[in-house]
Amino acid sequence: MWLRKTMTVAAFLCAVAGGTNMAAADDSKPEYALVIHGGAGTITRDKLTPELEADIRATLNEALSTGQTILSSGGTALDAITATIQVLENSPHFNAGKGAVFTAEGKNELDSSIMDGSDLNAGAVSGVTNVKNPITLARAVMEKSVHVMLQGPGAEKFADENGIERADDAYFYTEYRWNQLQDAKAKQKGPILDHDGKKHSSVEDITNGDYKFGTVGAVARDKHGNLAAGTSTGGMTNKSHGRVGDAPIIGAGTYANNESCAVSATGHGEYFIRATVARNICALMEYAGLSLEDAANRVVKDQLVKMGGDGGIIAVDKDGNTVMPFNTPGMFRGRVTSVMDAEVAIYED
Amino acid sequence: MWLRKTMTVAAFLCAVAGGTNMAAADDSKPEYALVIHGGAGTITRDKLTPELEADIRATLNEALSTGQTILSSGGTALDAITATIQVLENSPHFNAGKGAVFTAEGKNELDSSIMDGSDLNAGAVSGVTNVKNPITLARAVMEKSVHVMLQGPGAEKFADENGIERADDAYFYTEYRWNQLQDAKAKQKGPILDHDGKKHSSVEDITNGDYKFGTVGAVARDKHGNLAAGTSTGGMTNKSHGRVGDAPIIGAGTYANNESCAVSATGHGEYFIRATVARNICALMEYAGLSLEDAANRVVKDQLVKMGGDGGIIAVDKDGNTVMPFNTPGMFRGRVTSVMDAEVAIYED
Repeated sequence: MWLRKTMTVAAFLCAVAGGTNMAAADDSKPEYALVIHGGAGTITRDKLTPELEADIRATLNEALSTGQTILSSGGTALDAITATIQVLENSPHFNAGKGAVFTAEGKNELDSSIMDGSDLNAGAVSGVTNVKNPITLARAVMEKSVHVMLQGPGAEKFADENGIERADDAYFYTEYRWNQLQDAKAKQKGPILDHDGKKHSSVEDITNGDYKFGTVGAVARDKHGNLAAGTSTGGMTNKSHGRVGDAPIIGAGTYANNESCAVSATGHGEYFIRATVARNICALMEYAGLSLEDAANRVVKDQLVKMGGDGGIIAVDKDGNTVMPFNTPGMFRGRVTSVMDAEVAIYED
Repeated sequence: MWLRKTMTVAAFLCAVAGGTNMAAADDSKPEYALVIHGGAGTITRDKLTPELEADIRATLNEALSTGQTILSSGGTALDAITATIQVLENSPHFNAGKGAVFTAEGKNELDSSIMDGSDLNAGAVSGVTNVKNPITLARAVMEKSVHVMLQGPGAEKFADENGIERADDAYFYTEYRWNQLQDAKAKQKGPILDHDGKKHSSVEDITNGDYKFGTVGAVARDKHGNLAAGTSTGGMTNKSHGRVGDAPIIGAGTYANNESCAVSATGHGEYFIRATVARNICALMEYAGLSLEDAANRVVKDQLVKMGGDGGIIAVDKDGNTVMPFNTPGMFRGRVTSVMDAEVAIYED
């Protein structure tokens, strides 16, 4: 249950009773809203130690607090999600930036995208190495190039030309991720989807619960009514060199349009690309007149389930409504609005 | 005016008069349909010599004939568009495969994607070099890998592992394209959008009309009611190394869903990504109940025009209706159905 900061018990009862206390309804429409995710997958209570869970919750709270500070002082949704995602990228706990998984060749290939709902401007990078904050590079592509998407060495050249911070291999080395790769290789596995190893990756017999972290993302509505969305990932452990998932694909992993909503996705990217998940949720609002909740549930809990695509999304609509549906056992997530205290969650219930 | 093969004058008059001759309506609903494009842009009569125009028309007709042979004998939409696009890739006249433009570094970087509307399966490659038929590689990614999209050297490694034909630099060298690059460099231009140099490329003063060819694509409906779409391109002359346009992006340059339509786009890719053009046309049919013609026109002649995105699309819907709208002076295009003779066109009228 999310705590409503400003709604009194009396107002709440009036609202429930269908009373005419409109102040309650007005109070509940937030001036700003921020939602984050740190990946969806087979995350269950038995797989996280209390210490690790506390660490992850602290990082999610820090990310929310960073974005909220920007939004509450009148900053833009774009600035808020950029700073929020940087916090998640700088943590070793998530499969993005510092905590990125290793490819089959022992490298960290990073993907990211960002979109501004006010003008449909967008930026994306795929397959970049040694870039400390891929979300910062995606934003630079959006703002400083005539292109929307740059890949590989070309994207890295652009990073250097625009003063984007690089980091050496040692920065991205985490023993935990390296062991994941060795484990996958030793067992001659195919690519391990970090979000959920159950499907298409033959990891049923992997019981150490090491495949539970994922992509990060953030969506926001600012006080000016503008929406923005961003996503960042390290892809799949032991993935083929050159595989592109949904995270850097505008319309699949990320989409934002002030007319409808802003979405960031996390899950089995191949399915999310084929279903154009982020764009599809916005389209259902724009063309079919669905609410954000109905649109998100139809895509995540119906369409993707039928296709076999595990994962989840976070979204905020033009009125500041927020949703965080997922079809996996858990999703690292959190949200804060001008009328709700920050709260983070991991499991389904 | 497209010739209707099987509709008699009497049937046509009945149909126009709203008569009850249902045979006419049935006759006009094609068993199969194929539409192709060879790029949209500033293509006007004064820019093509009669010889070049005849050559281009012959290639478009050959492409249509290749696909029609497959469709008329009961072959799949997927096989038809693959073979059709291979013909266009093998021609030096279009910016795909052999005729691809050069990047700023003097290389040919190729992008392609393909989608099967019957199961939403898809394959895509971006930034590959020395691959003779990128559409063949995209299809192999769809059918033989667990991934949807592969980029750069990783995609080329996959090509070699799966016996996809490679070709050396000499194969892709065309004097015409090389001179385009030298011209762009001499004038210190930015990337030249091959489709239409007018926007974001400072080519107002280029008067030699050398920037008129583009991306190729095909969409089809087969006798079994299945839809498929594919797109292949060489991108922009003098583009930054690593730029990804809309052609390899599922939802932007290519989309197919048996429930609605199959779309292949050509134009200023950055705008087509931001507007998720191909998916958006299908979504307007699925969720807003628009006809294919209305959906395509709304995206190409309204939304993209307002954003400043030059280009066009080809599409076929589940009933075999076909459209080929563009917002530029011309688009190389053609179509054939079981009830219409093959016809190709270049200019607006």
